[in-house]
Amino acid sequence: MRELFELCGADPELVFSPYCWRVRLALAHKGLDWQSRPTRFTDKELIAFSGQKLVPVLIDEGETVHDSLAIFAYLDQRYPQRPLLGGALAAERARLVERLSFHMVRVPLLKMLIPRVWQVIDPADREYFRSSREKALGMSLEAFADPQGGERLFREGVAPLEMWLRDQPFLEGQASGGCDYLLAGMLFWAWCLGAQPWAEDSALGAWFARILQTYEATHGPVKRAAIHLEENQ
Amino acid sequence: MRELFELCGADPELVFSPYCWRVRLALAHKGLDWQSRPTRFTDKELIAFSGQKLVPVLIDEGETVHDSLAIFAYLDQRYPQRPLLGGALAAERARLVERLSFHMVRVPLLKMLIPRVWQVIDPADREYFRSSREKALGMSLEAFADPQGGERLFREGVAPLEMWLRDQPFLEGQASGGCDYLLAGMLFWAWCLGAQPWAEDSALGAWFARILQTYEATHGPVKRAAIHLEENQ
Repeated sequence: MRELFELCGADPELVFSPYCWRVRLALAHKGLDWQSRPTRFTDKELIAFSGQKLVPVLIDEGETVHDSLAIFAYLDQRYPQRPLLGGALAAERARLVERLSFHMVRVPLLKMLIPRVWQVIDPADREYFRSSREKALGMSLEAFADPQGGERLFREGVAPLEMWLRDQPFLEGQASGGCDYLLAGMLFWAWCLGAQPWAEDSALGAWFARILQTYEATHGPVKRAAIHLEENQ
Repeated sequence: MRELFELCGADPELVFSPYCWRVRLALAHKGLDWQSRPTRFTDKELIAFSGQKLVPVLIDEGETVHDSLAIFAYLDQRYPQRPLLGGALAAERARLVERLSFHMVRVPLLKMLIPRVWQVIDPADREYFRSSREKALGMSLEAFADPQGGERLFREGVAPLEMWLRDQPFLEGQASGGCDYLLAGMLFWAWCLGAQPWAEDSALGAWFARILQTYEATHGPVKRAAIHLEENQ
């Protein structure tokens, strides 16, 4: 059986990592089943077999692959139907789209979502979450987090995507593809943590709803956290 | 003979339109020659045969094509060597990269370059330039132009491209391709107007220098405007 090691909260059914969501969407796109292996931030021994410390990790037919883009490439090679990255030129451009859209949405969402991640993770994960993120950010979580500012930056950042999606239902055209999932994973991060910085009636909101609905039609309802943030958090 | 109608300044050799530069770079990439047809903003009768009012317009083998992306697609179809856009998936992603990178650099450069465009164009073009741009921008040229602010926005906007180009010589990998020219056209706009908002020793600067050098090696020196802007302009 195919196994996907993916980040979870204190509730093992709450999967919120954007990179793990990319892989879920990619597997669903290919029509492949998998068994979820919920993995907490500090469950490093669970994925030690992969030779590194980060999820997602996929075990498929005896192969172990980590990193969302590497998993996309692996899936295309092993299961050529419905390409995610496609040929060399298309794949290179998917990586470039990923880099550009990542820059537009990742930092804004991180500013928004830090207090929510803090609430949903297992208390035993909090020290790891704080120290790893503070090292990467070069400042305290409290100094970096800014839910209102992050939401404003997100709306500014997605403006070109919003315009693009007014002309066609998916980033890739008439059907969803690799670039859609690379970006949608980021929005699932917010969604599963109970946030929604896009307007329901925006083109981006309609695009996300299409991807969510397609996923839920085959895989059941997506678990969202019920979070009550205190004022000024 | 292949003819390219392209925007020029009062000096017909000064070609600075980003969209026309895209086409020059695309033709050079394919190894195709062309005859330049310098066209001022108000030379609308020169391109009336194309059924619309904007350059670039390419006449090739009796075909007339306008719009830089449409010209890329035409060139790929007519001259399949060294694809610019490539197959359907790659082409769709090139358009998406164009949209995202355009958003990052076009408005910042426009804020920077308006006073320079004003200086280089034929005085007879100034009324057209002012009224067409003020209508599109919804404000006066003076209210929109902001060379220092535009330069700061440009540097922020290209940050993800800068990181991308630290890992590989071209946006498309080891060789330049369609996405490189779509973006480089924007930088030629600044370059030909005597501006250079990127640092020489940045990865973006080195990338632009590679594209410029390759072009000049086969097509001779690129004409730049010598502009002296007054303080606070």
